[in-house]
Amino acid sequence: MQVSGGDLQRLRQLNSLSSIRALRESRAPLTLTELSAQTGLSRASVGDVVTDLHQRGWITEVEPTPGTMGRPAKRYRFRADAGHVLGIDIGVHKVLAVVTDLTGRIVASGRVAVDRNTTRPERLEAVWRAVEAALVASGLAAADLWGVTAGSVGVVSREGVVTRVEALPDWPGVDLAGHLGERLSCPITIENDSKLAALAEQRLGVAAGVQDLVYLHVGRRPGAALILSGRLHHGFSGATGEVGLMDITGWRTMAVELEGCPVADGAPPEEAARLVFGAARAGDAVAQEAVDVYARRLALGTAAMVLTLDPELVILGGGFSRSADVLLPALQRALEPHCLRVPAIRPSTLGEECVALGGACLALDQVAERFFSSEGSLASPVAPQRLG
Amino acid sequence: MQVSGGDLQRLRQLNSLSSIRALRESRAPLTLTELSAQTGLSRASVGDVVTDLHQRGWITEVEPTPGTMGRPAKRYRFRADAGHVLGIDIGVHKVLAVVTDLTGRIVASGRVAVDRNTTRPERLEAVWRAVEAALVASGLAAADLWGVTAGSVGVVSREGVVTRVEALPDWPGVDLAGHLGERLSCPITIENDSKLAALAEQRLGVAAGVQDLVYLHVGRRPGAALILSGRLHHGFSGATGEVGLMDITGWRTMAVELEGCPVADGAPPEEAARLVFGAARAGDAVAQEAVDVYARRLALGTAAMVLTLDPELVILGGGFSRSADVLLPALQRALEPHCLRVPAIRPSTLGEECVALGGACLALDQVAERFFSSEGSLASPVAPQRLG
Repeated sequence: MQVSGGDLQRLRQLNSLSSIRALRESRAPLTLTELSAQTGLSRASVGDVVTDLHQRGWITEVEPTPGTMGRPAKRYRFRADAGHVLGIDIGVHKVLAVVTDLTGRIVASGRVAVDRNTTRPERLEAVWRAVEAALVASGLAAADLWGVTAGSVGVVSREGVVTRVEALPDWPGVDLAGHLGERLSCPITIENDSKLAALAEQRLGVAAGVQDLVYLHVGRRPGAALILSGRLHHGFSGATGEVGLMDITGWRTMAVELEGCPVADGAPPEEAARLVFGAARAGDAVAQEAVDVYARRLALGTAAMVLTLDPELVILGGGFSRSADVLLPALQRALEPHCLRVPAIRPSTLGEECVALGGACLALDQVAERFFSSEGSLASPVAPQRLG
Repeated sequence: MQVSGGDLQRLRQLNSLSSIRALRESRAPLTLTELSAQTGLSRASVGDVVTDLHQRGWITEVEPTPGTMGRPAKRYRFRADAGHVLGIDIGVHKVLAVVTDLTGRIVASGRVAVDRNTTRPERLEAVWRAVEAALVASGLAAADLWGVTAGSVGVVSREGVVTRVEALPDWPGVDLAGHLGERLSCPITIENDSKLAALAEQRLGVAAGVQDLVYLHVGRRPGAALILSGRLHHGFSGATGEVGLMDITGWRTMAVELEGCPVADGAPPEEAARLVFGAARAGDAVAQEAVDVYARRLALGTAAMVLTLDPELVILGGGFSRSADVLLPALQRALEPHCLRVPAIRPSTLGEECVALGGACLALDQVAERFFSSEGSLASPVAPQRLG
């Protein structure tokens, strides 16, 4: 068989990729012998690859455990701090920016409070302040970032344009990618906030390893996002999980069940649900009935999605998930009459960093595509620039 | 860089895979120069690979076009007839078996009529007769088959067990894989019939190249199947597209709108719809109103799926799709009030061979996985045996 220069280069790249994959996925550092066993590559090939990856800065040698007898074998690990990405949550009530390493661990964050009355220019200014704060806290410069994903309320098209937002009248049409691109030179992606929360739970949270799930964003106006075959389902125009728009589900008006409950009498709408869930938790029958009615409405739209998709898991996320101890059993009961099989239901575990963390996860997917896929190139780890 | 024997073998395999992929995907036969350009491999590597693939029987040399001047370059094409698969549609009213080549072209088929009152043993016997007929017509023996997929009415679990069938009381629990395995030695898969119809349309029919679609099986009891990110969505327990089970959609009883229409007076239920669609087509206002009511019911469940998934396309399949000229515009109108964006709706084009053809497509996916994926092995083309 003839082996050309191009063949050799391709072979070397494939060997590097299988080695870096094994090192990234391993929790513990690996010796050359272990790496050879895991990749199926010869010990000699692994030696070549490791020297090369080490020189380029993708992996680091780990100090031998003190007290080890004899001459210990060298061990290597993937350098999680070789690069960093930024995830941003642009919500109604807060803007949160998190900087993570290449494993999705948060190393720094910045947060700015906003509200329903914050104008578009003010909200965009808040985005900068949150990003600046996260960068200052991380000790990194904007040019060090390898990727940015921002999550926004509303429907976000495949091109990253916010096309529909019920909560913020002046937000549709905002050019977030353009805005972020004024000061950030790395690749930028915009996505819907609930979709990013679903992704974060599937990568780092309660749904680790689950292939098909429905993420319920449960609050005054419920929404939903889908992970299918392990990937975020974007849909043709970005408008997935919108079953609540059908009047038949009652999702657009269902919060009145909680806000009209006598135990919430006089409280502002934002407070009402917490009071009702609290009273139900304490055994108040009227409050429990209001929760049950809310859960039955929630179950209608949820059942439509469950019967359509037959997911393994439903995640209860969003503000009301803090009362999952009360709401989850009520939802479970309300789903049973509708579903062939009620999937497992679990509350979100990532809390208020969920959306920003999901942004980091999506940016990391793109980093992996660029560097670690079979079409990728393991050049030295440097922050990628946008095209054009 | 050191190159080991294992490295060389891997390199040769990767070169073979990229060459066979290019040849499979090309409509026209390719010269070595063209193959080199399409794969990025050197001319010398391509020469090696083509000699090897030709010897093994995966490709064939094409005769030069008569009248070509000078000495024409040799041209090669993928041998679609190197292997064959079997797709079987086990329905309420028929059993249809089709034998296709490796591109999904039907080379022979066998059909046996059954009905609602056919017992389980009789239906299983009909399966054998249809399979035997298709094999006789194709001139192949059972041992020549590379893969078999049978589509059954009802919910089919990931393990291939039929778990729920409303139309055939004695069918749940039937061990189709075990039955087929008594006489067929190749890998066997069982799947729901509507899912296979959806796959066939996406591979060979009206939805070629569409990534996300909802396939509506429209008849006396509508059903649905999903293709998401270009792949059949099976769901956790196989029960996807079952939104019609919610009473709120009215899908379980909606055929009465057509059967109760005065223009169908006295006709058996199986005939009624055809009469009503025909009268509506001819301009009968009462029949058109019955169609509109039916379409509004159909739209409720369809909208729930469309709002959940935001698909590019909805396919109108099943028996009533023969009246798509009347039903499709009514469905389109009925969806508009519910949907943010009404997807394109197109009638199925593959007709009554759709399910069997989808079975062949799924069997071919498994053939491609075994031979042509990066984990595959291009050993000589021989019919694979089941494990165990």
